[in-house]
Amino acid sequence: MTEARRWLDDAPAGLRVIDVSQAAPAEPPPEPLRREIARVALEEADAHLYGPVLGLPALRARLAAEWTAAYGASVAAADVAVTSGCNQAFATAVSILAAPGDEVILPVPWYFNHAMWLSQQGLRAVPLPTGEALIPDPDAAARLIGPRTRAIALVTPNNPTGREYPAEILAAFLDLCRARGIALILDETYRDFHSAGGAPHDLLARDWRGTLVQLYSFSKAYRLTGHRVGAMVADAAFLAQAEKVLDTVTICPNGIGQRAALWGMENLGAWLAGERAEVLARRDAVLSALGSLPGWRALSAGAYFAYAGHPWDAPSAAVARALVRQRGVLALPGAMFHPGGDPAGDRTVRIAFANLDRPGIALLAERLAGDLEGLSPRG
Amino acid sequence: MTEARRWLDDAPAGLRVIDVSQAAPAEPPPEPLRREIARVALEEADAHLYGPVLGLPALRARLAAEWTAAYGASVAAADVAVTSGCNQAFATAVSILAAPGDEVILPVPWYFNHAMWLSQQGLRAVPLPTGEALIPDPDAAARLIGPRTRAIALVTPNNPTGREYPAEILAAFLDLCRARGIALILDETYRDFHSAGGAPHDLLARDWRGTLVQLYSFSKAYRLTGHRVGAMVADAAFLAQAEKVLDTVTICPNGIGQRAALWGMENLGAWLAGERAEVLARRDAVLSALGSLPGWRALSAGAYFAYAGHPWDAPSAAVARALVRQRGVLALPGAMFHPGGDPAGDRTVRIAFANLDRPGIALLAERLAGDLEGLSPRG
Ligand SMILES: Cc1ncc(COP(=O)(O)O)c(C=O)c1O
Ligand SMILES: Cc1ncc(COP(=O)(O)O)c(C=O)c1O
Repeated sequence: MTEARRWLDDAPAGLRVIDVSQAAPAEPPPEPLRREIARVALEEADAHLYGPVLGLPALRARLAAEWTAAYGASVAAADVAVTSGCNQAFATAVSILAAPGDEVILPVPWYFNHAMWLSQQGLRAVPLPTGEALIPDPDAAARLIGPRTRAIALVTPNNPTGREYPAEILAAFLDLCRARGIALILDETYRDFHSAGGAPHDLLARDWRGTLVQLYSFSKAYRLTGHRVGAMVADAAFLAQAEKVLDTVTICPNGIGQRAALWGMENLGAWLAGERAEVLARRDAVLSALGSLPGWRALSAGAYFAYAGHPWDAPSAAVARALVRQRGVLALPGAMFHPGGDPAGDRTVRIAFANLDRPGIALLAERLAGDLEGLSPRG
Repeated sequence: MTEARRWLDDAPAGLRVIDVSQAAPAEPPPEPLRREIARVALEEADAHLYGPVLGLPALRARLAAEWTAAYGASVAAADVAVTSGCNQAFATAVSILAAPGDEVILPVPWYFNHAMWLSQQGLRAVPLPTGEALIPDPDAAARLIGPRTRAIALVTPNNPTGREYPAEILAAFLDLCRARGIALILDETYRDFHSAGGAPHDLLARDWRGTLVQLYSFSKAYRLTGHRVGAMVADAAFLAQAEKVLDTVTICPNGIGQRAALWGMENLGAWLAGERAEVLARRDAVLSALGSLPGWRALSAGAYFAYAGHPWDAPSAAVARALVRQRGVLALPGAMFHPGGDPAGDRTVRIAFANLDRPGIALLAERLAGDLEGLSPRG
């Protein structure tokens, strides 16, 4: 990430860079939510003070109710914890599940924060290749489970690929994990932008307690990235352990951010539906733009991302650098989402399109077209 | 903590409990700061979005400047990181310094979040007894350093004891740590309430880089506990490692909280001086109240805390429970700040007085006086 930002210095002078490297809203929360935050700051003394370790009871209850409805499930407030962002939820879950030397299986391409956290903790991230379809195979995963495997972590809709994992695949992963006595961590940061109208899976309507740890983020849906509010859905016994960890590190999630998240859930349903429709429309526009670019191939698209095969016979890192230098397009190379940083044969880039409007997408397509100096097209 | 809160259920009906268990302001930030937070929420889009991992550059620079002045030191913005609270700063520092099986020396009585984090990480907290004076002895610490010792962590002004460590003791600890190639972690969460007019120590004017990691919290001074903003002062190489850890867990500190902290530093100097004077006056009032209570003995007082010997021939946990039940006073037993939870002979309680006004202190003294049913006075 930080490295890719540095590439910006190489961008051609006079060309406004199209930045499709970031998985984050560029705009602040909608004005009514900003007004509510201001009101809370002025009027609610408690919002400024330490609160419960596992989060505001009203926010936990609201999330439980919404999840119960959305997933045809039964999730109680006691199954929900609020965290200082979704990454902290992941870190906390992992620290409960695994000790140094243990293993966690991650489909590749992976979300690099997950891989980084594991390596920082002295854990081994075991890569699960997903092939051209970018969908992890439960049978392949089963073969990777060893005596030190503690969990499988999935992200759907996926970052970096945008792939939405099919419900039956997710169900098979839950069954696998339950049968083998390991945890299934499911990061649904982008759930609000899923293309399915209804429930994207039925895991929470199954026998999930004791196996599933589901993660969520308020960062994207309500544009609250700077407030650091995420959530973890797990059975109450697991959350009792999470409480001990969180109490020691951050004590509680940010009070104002939590109230903003709650107000968002209560009042921004229609607005969020519009945001989702817009992101899905942009996805379609990106897909059709890529479809008309000679040599480019969209491997998948969803959430904020399109994952595309590029037309050059060169490692993705070289292509990504050339795109900045010659075209003023900053996109992250697929290599960044693979173990070791550049596997043989990776020929992909991630295009985080969510902040591009239709003219922006058209301009992006223009810039992606044609040759890149110094790189030869694939045979 | 959570357990002690549960004791509240035993408090006598009709008696308003005097809660001296909490090390936290009970009031929100002063109104001008709340107004500024509201303004930021409405007007500053960036405050809602992801920011730099190590914190707002302006806040880092301001802290560096203030530290340079306050400690007669040279601290650069590059030596400062902003964290999601001071406990996260501690957790991050420890995770950089030590791996499972390693040891960190903590004076006892200890700040239990430090001890808890170490044990959660598979590290050994090595207790350094401080005796009646409650001041750690560098020579005694030196004898505890073994091949797996990675750091000594001190808190001054201390939680739980309130003891302000003398400058020469701190200097000796810095020398010791540098000589032995281990880190000195110095938690100065309560620095703004130190009774010394000037610099409480000169460590930052010495050869500190490579050895010292100083921690700070914006929670207490500006009453921003719910915003989760703390800081870490360490050399730039150390902070480069911290950046990797923080990027993976919380990505950045809360944007609005950081702007509130900065505004507080820029505008609330006089207000904070008043807060400090009031806390010091309350400290004196508590000391004199304890002095006139038969059998009670103030062992030390500072920051938000008085650490007192109680008059009963009973473990401190039993005394603390009896104080809730019979007198409606919730104070934490000294046992809670010792390894194992109840060392032989501990006869202390921590009185977190900062939220008590003068009548409150008088009432507390009244309730502490006299016999407790079922407990016999010390011989
Ligand atoms: C898959 C995934 N998980 C978690 C996060 C982090 O979310 P938060 O801001 O809640 O920590 C992101 C942000 O990009 C993400 O893409
Ligand atoms: C000694 C000490 N360090 C750290 C903290 C935590 O501070 P923060 O709210 O910044 O995490 C406290 C809070 O009570 C404390 O007493």
